[in-house]
Amino acid sequence: MSEESSPLGRLLSPDSVAIVGASSNPVSAGYQFTRFLIDHGFRGKLYPVNPKLTDLLGLRVYPGLTAIPGPNVNYVISCIRADGVLSLLDDCGRKNVGLVHLFTARLKETGREEATRLQGKIQEKAKKLGIRILGPNCMGTYNPKVGLSFNHDLPTESGPVGGFFQSGGGAGEFVRYAGLRGVRFSKVVSYGNASDIDETELLDYFASDSETRVIASYIEGVKDGRKFLEALARAAKKKPVTILKAGRGRTATKLALSHTASLTGSDKVWHAALRQCGAVVVSNFEELTDQVVAFTFLPPMMERRVLVAGGGGGKSMVAADAWEEEGFDLPELSAQLRENVRRHDPEIWDWVTNPIDASLFQGTTLTYVDLLKWISDEDRFDVFAANLTQDDPLPADIWEKLLAPNFLQGAVAVRSKGRPVVCIIETGEIGPAEMGRWKWKAIAETRRELVNQGVAVFPTSERAARATRRLVDYWTRRGNEDQSL
Amino acid sequence: MSEESSPLGRLLSPDSVAIVGASSNPVSAGYQFTRFLIDHGFRGKLYPVNPKLTDLLGLRVYPGLTAIPGPNVNYVISCIRADGVLSLLDDCGRKNVGLVHLFTARLKETGREEATRLQGKIQEKAKKLGIRILGPNCMGTYNPKVGLSFNHDLPTESGPVGGFFQSGGGAGEFVRYAGLRGVRFSKVVSYGNASDIDETELLDYFASDSETRVIASYIEGVKDGRKFLEALARAAKKKPVTILKAGRGRTATKLALSHTASLTGSDKVWHAALRQCGAVVVSNFEELTDQVVAFTFLPPMMERRVLVAGGGGGKSMVAADAWEEEGFDLPELSAQLRENVRRHDPEIWDWVTNPIDASLFQGTTLTYVDLLKWISDEDRFDVFAANLTQDDPLPADIWEKLLAPNFLQGAVAVRSKGRPVVCIIETGEIGPAEMGRWKWKAIAETRRELVNQGVAVFPTSERAARATRRLVDYWTRRGNEDQSL
Repeated sequence: MSEESSPLGRLLSPDSVAIVGASSNPVSAGYQFTRFLIDHGFRGKLYPVNPKLTDLLGLRVYPGLTAIPGPNVNYVISCIRADGVLSLLDDCGRKNVGLVHLFTARLKETGREEATRLQGKIQEKAKKLGIRILGPNCMGTYNPKVGLSFNHDLPTESGPVGGFFQSGGGAGEFVRYAGLRGVRFSKVVSYGNASDIDETELLDYFASDSETRVIASYIEGVKDGRKFLEALARAAKKKPVTILKAGRGRTATKLALSHTASLTGSDKVWHAALRQCGAVVVSNFEELTDQVVAFTFLPPMMERRVLVAGGGGGKSMVAADAWEEEGFDLPELSAQLRENVRRHDPEIWDWVTNPIDASLFQGTTLTYVDLLKWISDEDRFDVFAANLTQDDPLPADIWEKLLAPNFLQGAVAVRSKGRPVVCIIETGEIGPAEMGRWKWKAIAETRRELVNQGVAVFPTSERAARATRRLVDYWTRRGNEDQSL
Repeated sequence: MSEESSPLGRLLSPDSVAIVGASSNPVSAGYQFTRFLIDHGFRGKLYPVNPKLTDLLGLRVYPGLTAIPGPNVNYVISCIRADGVLSLLDDCGRKNVGLVHLFTARLKETGREEATRLQGKIQEKAKKLGIRILGPNCMGTYNPKVGLSFNHDLPTESGPVGGFFQSGGGAGEFVRYAGLRGVRFSKVVSYGNASDIDETELLDYFASDSETRVIASYIEGVKDGRKFLEALARAAKKKPVTILKAGRGRTATKLALSHTASLTGSDKVWHAALRQCGAVVVSNFEELTDQVVAFTFLPPMMERRVLVAGGGGGKSMVAADAWEEEGFDLPELSAQLRENVRRHDPEIWDWVTNPIDASLFQGTTLTYVDLLKWISDEDRFDVFAANLTQDDPLPADIWEKLLAPNFLQGAVAVRSKGRPVVCIIETGEIGPAEMGRWKWKAIAETRRELVNQGVAVFPTSERAARATRRLVDYWTRRGNEDQSL
């Protein structure tokens, strides 16, 4: 934890955490946060605080913050009502607390005068005491390295993606969904009403954090537009910053106030400004996840030539449409590749094209492994998009024994030659009953294995093409900037 | 089967099927088609044909078509090589075969002169003999009512969706993926090169078929544009026709020739023409599936007022953006609903808005069931979009026992009052290992139960909003047409 070089980084990597308002009621936040930290193996000291309890989940409970032994508590998670926070801050001052995360809500976001005034008083008092405030009305910090978490069953290993989210639910879902696709995180911070620590400070922090290579953000509105955009321009020159700007419509603009007390501003102006400063702007959580998958697993790319393979004729055509609609080219296969095909099947050699319709090889001696080996030798492509064939009529057992391992080995082999690879693996809306049927289990396991090997996997060609295009756009801009220096 | 009133309908509902080129090799089509029909419980007589086999999968194998007892075979699936088809047709003539499905490929789609000529000869001979040809180069017919199938493990019950697909793989995947979302089918026909039975004849057939209420199609190109568009205009006045027009890009246009020997035509011209004739035009297989889900489970709608509920503030805002971006309005809640909320929680009554942020109710006595009951009494909304809350930090057991059943009952209750309901249920990229963890199993089972009860379920708000918008567009056009009569 001493590796943290910035003050905010140190605050978000505490040695000791007190959960004030800890509770034995399983639906309460005071219980939940205690569980999160226990279940994620928090590395430091953990102190639940509640005058009415003596123990919780095997931990000793303290009647108050000042009853905790030792002079210091680094980090406090406040799950008490808003009217108790001012007095809690007094105790925090006595224990030299560095940061208070206010899960506590119903403050400025209610739009009510009294609550807004209270939020102001809390902020003022914290500032006097030298205590930083995270929130109010937020889920706080996910820092897998120290075992701090804001939801159940999130990845325990850390990785290169840093995030700051105005929505706590959004932060939790983002970590969960991106985690399933292999993404791992340095820290993800849910910052809610941002009375103190805000989007600009967090962006600056992640931009300078050496453990963060990719930044993701969900924002509804910002406190100081100019400051934020300046920070963004600096950050985007160092590493990719993907922003989901919510509150685009009429309703959401009105709603942002009651969610996190933000003013969202005009959507079009915001989008243009964010893009101009180099942000990668996305429209929903799926796109945010896709983008982070792309930036995590694909190298910098500035060209748009794609080789598409796998699936029958229909799937190939729709895939080609999707890539072309995102501005990619599908150049012809090389003479060498055609010659290789010809040796195996003189009947189809001049007929195989990009996208490669895998169904043409049925009944020939040509295997997908051969093909992928040749593809890895091609030098006229910048990215290889591999569709996991599911539209063939092969029975599940043969598919599992033959096609799935071939696809897996092939994709990894192409990638091992330094070629960027994206895999497109679709799954239906399956449940436990289906998981044992048809090929679903094998498809899911093939995907898991690819993800474990660090391959970028997307559920559809459209989403793969869009995320890859935005990645190319980002690096092209960076390339142009570097040249103009 | 005698219910079929049209000649084509009768041909696609055979009493007897011969699989010519039946094989004991499990990767061969001759084996696969035999399996499909056995596994889907084909109701008629099934005759595998292969001079080198005596039995296959428990069935007697006949050395030739003419060795089959009785004077008639209704339907032949040809899995032999193209050079054997002309002589097969002679045998078909002797057995009074009505339709030959040519899985047999490598004909016109190769772009080669000789193969194109052979396809022409086959067509000519079949016509002379009074035999209809389905294909070549296609997967044939899925007709669950009689147990005819073109892939593994497709639904065995029938339903209101009819489809015609130029791509066989696309047809199989469509039935599989839409099937998982509760869609059932009258017939789905993969028609490949369309040397005889083509898109226009199939569209006319489904338009007049009383068992088909919704039509879905994947086309690359059409044989006779004017005829097809005329048929489309007639069909779209009777029932919704959703078309995935592939071959939009440069590559696909070139590729369509080698896939199913079609000329795709200029994309923009095609899209405009299809829309003008009343088709619902979509861009990929996911949208096609979504659209069929919407048309199957939602009633005709011509208004665009949506009530969005469920999920925390972030999810609600992003959902509101998605619905508004598709042209929907989110009107305010009624005074009555607010009054109901006020009785339970005077603190938040004037603060709850549309979209309803479910996280505001944490710690109040207000339940989601109360809320949904009130929503079902609202009369200022045309459609209710329910997000299954997943972004809360509740532990899996409480979520399973409380929120999931509440959501399910609530959505079904709103729907039972005649309100159109769409549910948005996201799942991550999970596999067998995850299915037992966190809430995944409960989420998947909640979705299955809703689907079983005939509710339209979508994976994201964007997809739900887009499909619903297209449904409203369709019925608005129909409404305007009816008024102008």
